[in-house]
Amino acid sequence: MGKLAMIAFGGNAMLLAGQKGSYEEQFANVQRTCDSLIPLLQQGYDLVIGHGNGPQVGNVLLQHEAGRKYFNMAAMPMDFCGAETQGSIAYMIESCLERSLRRAGLSRPVVSLVTRVEVSASDPAFQNPTKPVGPYYTAAEAARMTADGTPMKEDPRGRGWRKVVASPKPLRVNNIDLVGQLARGGNIVITVGGGGIPVVADGDGFRGVEAVIDKDLASVLAAISLRADEFYILTDVPQVCINFNTPQQKALGVLSVADAERYLAEGQFAEGSMAPKVRAGIAFVKAGGSQCIITEAGQLGNPACGTRIVL
Amino acid sequence: MGKLAMIAFGGNAMLLAGQKGSYEEQFANVQRTCDSLIPLLQQGYDLVIGHGNGPQVGNVLLQHEAGRKYFNMAAMPMDFCGAETQGSIAYMIESCLERSLRRAGLSRPVVSLVTRVEVSASDPAFQNPTKPVGPYYTAAEAARMTADGTPMKEDPRGRGWRKVVASPKPLRVNNIDLVGQLARGGNIVITVGGGGIPVVADGDGFRGVEAVIDKDLASVLAAISLRADEFYILTDVPQVCINFNTPQQKALGVLSVADAERYLAEGQFAEGSMAPKVRAGIAFVKAGGSQCIITEAGQLGNPACGTRIVL
Repeated sequence: MGKLAMIAFGGNAMLLAGQKGSYEEQFANVQRTCDSLIPLLQQGYDLVIGHGNGPQVGNVLLQHEAGRKYFNMAAMPMDFCGAETQGSIAYMIESCLERSLRRAGLSRPVVSLVTRVEVSASDPAFQNPTKPVGPYYTAAEAARMTADGTPMKEDPRGRGWRKVVASPKPLRVNNIDLVGQLARGGNIVITVGGGGIPVVADGDGFRGVEAVIDKDLASVLAAISLRADEFYILTDVPQVCINFNTPQQKALGVLSVADAERYLAEGQFAEGSMAPKVRAGIAFVKAGGSQCIITEAGQLGNPACGTRIVL
Repeated sequence: MGKLAMIAFGGNAMLLAGQKGSYEEQFANVQRTCDSLIPLLQQGYDLVIGHGNGPQVGNVLLQHEAGRKYFNMAAMPMDFCGAETQGSIAYMIESCLERSLRRAGLSRPVVSLVTRVEVSASDPAFQNPTKPVGPYYTAAEAARMTADGTPMKEDPRGRGWRKVVASPKPLRVNNIDLVGQLARGGNIVITVGGGGIPVVADGDGFRGVEAVIDKDLASVLAAISLRADEFYILTDVPQVCINFNTPQQKALGVLSVADAERYLAEGQFAEGSMAPKVRAGIAFVKAGGSQCIITEAGQLGNPACGTRIVL
């Protein structure tokens, strides 16, 4: 049996900062990201891909807001919008990855699952939503929305007010056993898009909630559930650094869990950026994974690439 | 081995005419449609579900247009918008069907695949796009768009001009063998949403095209490829009629292929409505399927329901 690797793509790698996110731009970005996976596939890995959707769901929320405001349409909550991005991003990844494979002379089916991820309705995150999403509103609009029960927060850079949603902890990835069977059977599987569609148990089923699940946390949950051998987190730097942006900056090659935990405690890694990735890596190796590699896409396949979190 | 049934849901059953398509409305409609499948599941059928997306992709196109017009965002083409609706509609069907199953005391995994469907770049439909989609434009806007290479058509009811896209014939449903394995393994599989994301072969891969694939044609292609035993097309009438809306109107119970072809030749069935469904049914039984049942959702499980097209 080959090694199974879980890979987490960043949503930002597929819709770059400053880009409008045209069709051509997004496909070009996704193609580049998919091409970077070829070395792993040439080495015979079975692959499961998770991905973020930050800029993409931001666009969907803006489009829903434009539709609401100007065409009197229904604007949909986060779970629905996240589901939309699972469809469009998976479509792009499937198309581009298939092309990468053919160009490399490889043949592997690619299959994308729409994926719900269970969170707890009593997750403390729901008491204190912190994640700003969607369009900016004026103070007057925000006051009205707050009165209607929508938690709002002012942007620290003065761009206005935004809705804030909870970012609860993922508990269970739907259909994850099936994902494992498919991946072990040679299919490249795309799942937990955007961290998964957040749902909570609700009597005889599950209902969607206004939340976003961190894609690194959802991906590591998937990786652990799958008993993946390796977990790759793709980001925009080649390695994790300590003393980042100081003269003492130092890139890390192999990083033990003990050191990683110490650096985290020292505040070496930015929250909302490198810290959750390092935490996800720690969780993965503590749960039995052999290593978590944090690196930029272009480095994959280089055996010494990135920062390798190990026990 | 149990019987395998392919079911085609109408997009209109999940977002009713006259509805704005709020979250609550759509979930309620989808729940009702999913509940209707329970009798088939109680009878032990393996199930694959295809579905339309007419009103849903209409909303997405309007939202993209609103984003383009008022927020200067990129408006995406049909393939991308269709992929978005695959995500959101599959999410609703998965959630609701799971609830229907639990309420009925049944336990079956539900899994949704993002699905591309191959069409031919030389399909004559691309020479003469006929399917109006998206927002209405003024004559002046339409003239500008036509000059930019977008085929436009005036609405016969005077509501303005709309973009027209091709409706090519589906040739191949991506990952259909996998769909069959999953369904035969007891999973209820959702695929070919909105008729599938239309793609054409393009050198070393497939690229999306501005088109919509008729969901009944995509579903029957899936049904035939899967060697399904039965093919159900859900619509908003209990049976197919001849002499529709005349004093001689007659509902059809069992309909032979020979009679069906004769009625089609007589123009008994409306194009864009019942005619493509009857054609899909004929194709299915000619390819070896035992019967195609055209009926309304509420009738499923009644052994004499609907109109049954047989050899």
